[in-house]
Amino acid sequence: MLSAELEILIRTALEEDIGSGDITTSCTVSPGAQGEGRIVAKEPLVLAGIDVARQVFWAVNRELQVHIPLKDGSRANEGDTLLEVTGDLAAILAAERTALNFLQRLSGIATLTNAFVDKVKGTRARILDTRKTTPGYRLLEKAAVRLGGGYNHRFGLYDGVLIKDNHIVAAGSIRKALQAALDSSSHTFRVEVEVETLEQLDEAIAAGAHVVMLDNMDLHTMAAAVRRTKGKIPLEASGGITLENVGEIAATGVDLISVGALTHSARAVDMSMEIQPA
Amino acid sequence: MLSAELEILIRTALEEDIGSGDITTSCTVSPGAQGEGRIVAKEPLVLAGIDVARQVFWAVNRELQVHIPLKDGSRANEGDTLLEVTGDLAAILAAERTALNFLQRLSGIATLTNAFVDKVKGTRARILDTRKTTPGYRLLEKAAVRLGGGYNHRFGLYDGVLIKDNHIVAAGSIRKALQAALDSSSHTFRVEVEVETLEQLDEAIAAGAHVVMLDNMDLHTMAAAVRRTKGKIPLEASGGITLENVGEIAATGVDLISVGALTHSARAVDMSMEIQPA
Amino acid sequence: MLSAELEILIRTALEEDIGSGDITTSCTVSPGAQGEGRIVAKEPLVLAGIDVARQVFWAVNRELQVHIPLKDGSRANEGDTLLEVTGDLAAILAAERTALNFLQRLSGIATLTNAFVDKVKGTRARILDTRKTTPGYRLLEKAAVRLGGGYNHRFGLYDGVLIKDNHIVAAGSIRKALQAALDSSSHTFRVEVEVETLEQLDEAIAAGAHVVMLDNMDLHTMAAAVRRTKGKIPLEASGGITLENVGEIAATGVDLISVGALTHSARAVDMSMEIQPA
Amino acid sequence: MLSAELEILIRTALEEDIGSGDITTSCTVSPGAQGEGRIVAKEPLVLAGIDVARQVFWAVNRELQVHIPLKDGSRANEGDTLLEVTGDLAAILAAERTALNFLQRLSGIATLTNAFVDKVKGTRARILDTRKTTPGYRLLEKAAVRLGGGYNHRFGLYDGVLIKDNHIVAAGSIRKALQAALDSSSHTFRVEVEVETLEQLDEAIAAGAHVVMLDNMDLHTMAAAVRRTKGKIPLEASGGITLENVGEIAATGVDLISVGALTHSARAVDMSMEIQPA
Amino acid sequence: MLSAELEILIRTALEEDIGSGDITTSCTVSPGAQGEGRIVAKEPLVLAGIDVARQVFWAVNRELQVHIPLKDGSRANEGDTLLEVTGDLAAILAAERTALNFLQRLSGIATLTNAFVDKVKGTRARILDTRKTTPGYRLLEKAAVRLGGGYNHRFGLYDGVLIKDNHIVAAGSIRKALQAALDSSSHTFRVEVEVETLEQLDEAIAAGAHVVMLDNMDLHTMAAAVRRTKGKIPLEASGGITLENVGEIAATGVDLISVGALTHSARAVDMSMEIQPA
Amino acid sequence: MLSAELEILIRTALEEDIGSGDITTSCTVSPGAQGEGRIVAKEPLVLAGIDVARQVFWAVNRELQVHIPLKDGSRANEGDTLLEVTGDLAAILAAERTALNFLQRLSGIATLTNAFVDKVKGTRARILDTRKTTPGYRLLEKAAVRLGGGYNHRFGLYDGVLIKDNHIVAAGSIRKALQAALDSSSHTFRVEVEVETLEQLDEAIAAGAHVVMLDNMDLHTMAAAVRRTKGKIPLEASGGITLENVGEIAATGVDLISVGALTHSARAVDMSMEIQPA
Repeated sequence: MLSAELEILIRTALEEDIGSGDITTSCTVSPGAQGEGRIVAKEPLVLAGIDVARQVFWAVNRELQVHIPLKDGSRANEGDTLLEVTGDLAAILAAERTALNFLQRLSGIATLTNAFVDKVKGTRARILDTRKTTPGYRLLEKAAVRLGGGYNHRFGLYDGVLIKDNHIVAAGSIRKALQAALDSSSHTFRVEVEVETLEQLDEAIAAGAHVVMLDNMDLHTMAAAVRRTKGKIPLEASGGITLENVGEIAATGVDLISVGALTHSARAVDMSMEIQPA
Repeated sequence: MLSAELEILIRTALEEDIGSGDITTSCTVSPGAQGEGRIVAKEPLVLAGIDVARQVFWAVNRELQVHIPLKDGSRANEGDTLLEVTGDLAAILAAERTALNFLQRLSGIATLTNAFVDKVKGTRARILDTRKTTPGYRLLEKAAVRLGGGYNHRFGLYDGVLIKDNHIVAAGSIRKALQAALDSSSHTFRVEVEVETLEQLDEAIAAGAHVVMLDNMDLHTMAAAVRRTKGKIPLEASGGITLENVGEIAATGVDLISVGALTHSARAVDMSMEIQPA
Repeated sequence: MLSAELEILIRTALEEDIGSGDITTSCTVSPGAQGEGRIVAKEPLVLAGIDVARQVFWAVNRELQVHIPLKDGSRANEGDTLLEVTGDLAAILAAERTALNFLQRLSGIATLTNAFVDKVKGTRARILDTRKTTPGYRLLEKAAVRLGGGYNHRFGLYDGVLIKDNHIVAAGSIRKALQAALDSSSHTFRVEVEVETLEQLDEAIAAGAHVVMLDNMDLHTMAAAVRRTKGKIPLEASGGITLENVGEIAATGVDLISVGALTHSARAVDMSMEIQPA
Repeated sequence: MLSAELEILIRTALEEDIGSGDITTSCTVSPGAQGEGRIVAKEPLVLAGIDVARQVFWAVNRELQVHIPLKDGSRANEGDTLLEVTGDLAAILAAERTALNFLQRLSGIATLTNAFVDKVKGTRARILDTRKTTPGYRLLEKAAVRLGGGYNHRFGLYDGVLIKDNHIVAAGSIRKALQAALDSSSHTFRVEVEVETLEQLDEAIAAGAHVVMLDNMDLHTMAAAVRRTKGKIPLEASGGITLENVGEIAATGVDLISVGALTHSARAVDMSMEIQPA
Repeated sequence: MLSAELEILIRTALEEDIGSGDITTSCTVSPGAQGEGRIVAKEPLVLAGIDVARQVFWAVNRELQVHIPLKDGSRANEGDTLLEVTGDLAAILAAERTALNFLQRLSGIATLTNAFVDKVKGTRARILDTRKTTPGYRLLEKAAVRLGGGYNHRFGLYDGVLIKDNHIVAAGSIRKALQAALDSSSHTFRVEVEVETLEQLDEAIAAGAHVVMLDNMDLHTMAAAVRRTKGKIPLEASGGITLENVGEIAATGVDLISVGALTHSARAVDMSMEIQPA
Repeated sequence: MLSAELEILIRTALEEDIGSGDITTSCTVSPGAQGEGRIVAKEPLVLAGIDVARQVFWAVNRELQVHIPLKDGSRANEGDTLLEVTGDLAAILAAERTALNFLQRLSGIATLTNAFVDKVKGTRARILDTRKTTPGYRLLEKAAVRLGGGYNHRFGLYDGVLIKDNHIVAAGSIRKALQAALDSSSHTFRVEVEVETLEQLDEAIAAGAHVVMLDNMDLHTMAAAVRRTKGKIPLEASGGITLENVGEIAATGVDLISVGALTHSARAVDMSMEIQPA
């Protein structure tokens, strides 16, 4: 994410939380009082967003000293310190919640992704994200997926040709849709198409598809699809993937497994900030 | 949320997803082709964000016809139609994912809130949200909480005096922190303070607290706190609240129960859009 | 005011004044010429906005050296130096008018506020501002009021419950309006209501008002209101307050006196900048 | 003022006042309740900003009906209706203060300008404004000056060559500064120079000045300056102009009189809004 | 281009040209005067940007009536009317130059592109643009290329893998760079690589390149490259392409020819607006 | 150009080119790899935009070291180094194209302007630009004209009174239009009027024009105009000026020659960046 865009998101977040001022702190903390804050993990996690958190503190007060013991992508355990910040106590308190809100959400995505990745170890399958992200957060959330060991599918409608059921209906058939995309899309793209049956898979391959997405196929059919294509083109499994079934899906031999839940349903991991006045 | 701010969020989201263009649709859908899209619930849910979804479609193309059969706050069942949109097919496809991303996330919050509210029916307790929201989404997410039957705690640091452990440490004692806040905060605010023990509760009441938050107290102590205050001031339970324990907590007689998970860990509810070319 | 918002206001102001360039300076001042500017008070005043003025100079040229001998909130006399700036002469001249425009206006508010505060010394009354501020300047102007020794009323419609005549008309009666507000506003707010007569005062207190505003009451009635409430709840005098009558109003024993003129009718205090080429 | 810029100012103002919501109205006014508001003059005034006020109402709710009986620039008396707005009552109440804040300030400027213009009737002098405006409001305030019968001096540093004392010091002499400006400024500009004595006036004319500003001259000297130039070039009086002395200054025969107080020290004129629920 | 982004560009352009007001028109055209403007071609051209021009007029005044006789992509001859606008005369004059500036520039690009396309008729070659566009105008300029009959290369660094000499130097060899890109770029992209010799071409093909760019190759070598690859992968000619040599280059049998001059050196085509007062 | 506005343009340009990331570099360049880039002239040119180019590199990565051997306005020959940048190699590659796009375009304008200036050496004529600039680039392009030795005409509609044919038609006659402008435009402006014949020139002078533009006059008539005015007022030649005819036009004795092609049809000058990994 370009720093300019991230700055705007952080400013928006701080304005939303601080607004006309932190009225509790202005009553209870002496102006100029110094202190230290430590963000601590309260459960095991894969870290993501630590640089964002640092920028939140700096956006409130550029003179805060921020120390980051672990890099993004690291595993942390309960009790590990994730960030230390020293300086104006009122500034630390004003930034605390916004910094945690970013950090807990992004680390939640990295941690969940990592759980999926662990389940497919030893297979050829890569765990992919989708476009089911929080609006305005796509670059941040896709970076969190990479930090958790996953891979990114296309970033938007602009950087990948993926023919889905609705396009097939509009074009008339898989063959017609593929033909149109192969003719008129830029020479820089491969063309991927979504199929639901083995017959559609055959039609897609005959029409020249470069990649095929197997949508909501059962394990048996998916395995048949893998056998039928013999590795000539990449196959992507999609639809209804969970931590419970992802291992079996990977075992069919598919190349790619895309999981919407990585970004649309990851829960926040637990963290808190402890303050020590100077 | 003022419509100007929402417009900016929607534009950002669309630019993020569409960028330099929807290359698949431009290959496979004829320019000017018309069609209809229907967003359908794929599980039971409480609806939130339906007006946002409509604005997403209008932001892509102001001439799309959008029909909304159910209002925000309604319960819907699997198979119910939530939104119908008619017009330029390419515009509908370009807006689809962004509209769903807003709608699934906000309805997820309303649905989870409603589950908490159901658990405390018949008690005096109100379910409250917290400031643990997605940065940039506070007004939207707090509206979703209300649609699910919950109540809003303060919107930010600016519109409520809430003395937490860190403020008490900084001020020196509960008494000192409360005294400072009662003296210097505006006459328009009540003063709430967080306590962890019954002794602290006594100290808070003696010092003039208007509201007390019981932080991470066990059920037994919480019940004792309720008996001790006899309804003279509102008590708020906070920390570690789940669907499993919220009923028992409400049964202690507390007035308010705040739940971070409403906004930081709600999963997206399942929906999809079906397209029918004209 | 968050520095991001202030930066935008300063940039807007500079673009408005400088636009496509300072054509007089580019003709008459050699490129690279150095100099010093001193902003001097031309009448007694209470200083406000000196940090804004410094930021104006830095927004034009980050390398200007700015020295500020007096802090915001200080009293200054005619002839006192308020700010010294050294560096690129063309940059100093380009920033001069915008810096002065901020400084004279904000110091005008602090100075007028201070005159009101002086008039009520020795009474229990606090001087409050209102929402009658220059659109876009609320945080700056309310800060200037504090620097002049005044207190802030609510910052907007979002951070205080104040039931005015129009709300009473809409709700049907003082009692109904108060009941609704006590029931449904957040537990973090007190509820204030505006009354015009002693009968309305009695109704307000009976209905549970936390604070009462006495709107345009004559001195005699106001004194009766104070006697009747005996300090049980804060009373706020409002409407038609001037430097001439504020002393008598304070003498009635009211707790709060709100004055729209502090922000809507303060005149600019007189200052000028003297330049010395290096 | 381009409508895009005005829209941004109005949005900023509304966000500043409404923020996360009008909590009093949401408690006391039924959702969907209709009503009418009338803005009424409470003293004689010259109207300015009535279109801005209308846009404020529309920015809150585009469906409000707004009727404007008087055009900007009209004189109004105490009790005259200036604006009527009908529709959603909560929207009217949310917009009320922001609309009035614009309208009272801008009409204050038009009214004060008009008082100056009245004082110079029958002379050749035009009343001019200055660059001493509220930062961010220059176009609005200069329009209010015109509505009051005044004329605009340059809008900023970019659209007029005005050599002031500081430029003369930097250039070395009046003659040198004028020579440089005549040589290198665009052929589209006249060159104005500020002088304090008759000797400087002679020097300025000899060096080719197109317009001369007489800075803080006493009446006697000013009259001598007028006699000496015999109408060959326009003369502008500046510095310390008040409603008390402007008549005498105009009587000297100067062409232009610039008055900083028009924009930096006009007080708000008194108005209020009365609400009638439907 | 999303209309939101285009709106911002148009507003910026109008603010830049109109600023504090059109002072000539305000002196010479009566307020409210009506009229008609016609934009006329003064040389043969391919039209591009006509919708942008219409939006410019609407951005100044939403009530202007705009009629567009020819669609973007049409050929026009000297004397043809391209746009008719009716309504407030001052608004038409204020928008004129900005509308023409967009229209002449974009039509210039479409016209130049069309000249290149004409030169390669009858060959298999497509004319492509590059990233050598005016910063901030990429979507507009690439659309103009399509209107002239050309095709778009990648829109930016984000939507196409193109390994250029600098990447090869950084990676160590063509083979290493290709291997890295094939391994780690998304499955949605093809990989293109730039070569300067036939040996490099062989290396690229052996390493699995999907597309090869022939950089600054002479005609003879280029023809050899075509023979050697026998149509198995697309070849793109690049570097030093002019209207004079593009025909010979196309005759070698390359698939794609990219031309920087389409966007970085197209001259404006000649147009003017004629006004008729009503 | 105020740095704030330039920053926005640069950010827009970088977002447009980099978007969701430089996917080629991320595959082929090791994270953290260092290197050096040199921008080299590939033909003789007058340099403009070198500070913009530097800011582009800094906008991508503030830690890049940028060395600039030549200042804007310098002449450079083929092979001359124009900029050297050292640091993170991926950042240099991400900024390369945007930096070059600014630099080649602005230097193209300066170079073309300089060619015109060379052609009129030894005459009294100044080469002026027009308002025919790229929307959003006016300040940058007018600065490039100055760097090439040209002069600026007005920057927009706001800072110069120029009565063109359309204004004359609207006002009724040259005399009426001039009279109106002399009466009501600010005392800071001269009034320029466009004429096409000697009769119109006489009318313009009789009516008090301060400057006259000779629109599309042939050389013979232009020379007659110069003789007739005898240097009393400046004359500006305009319309159809090329490198071929500008010398003859200057020889007629006109004071000013305005050339739209300087900004609307300058071609990019040729440059490239060479990279050296560290």
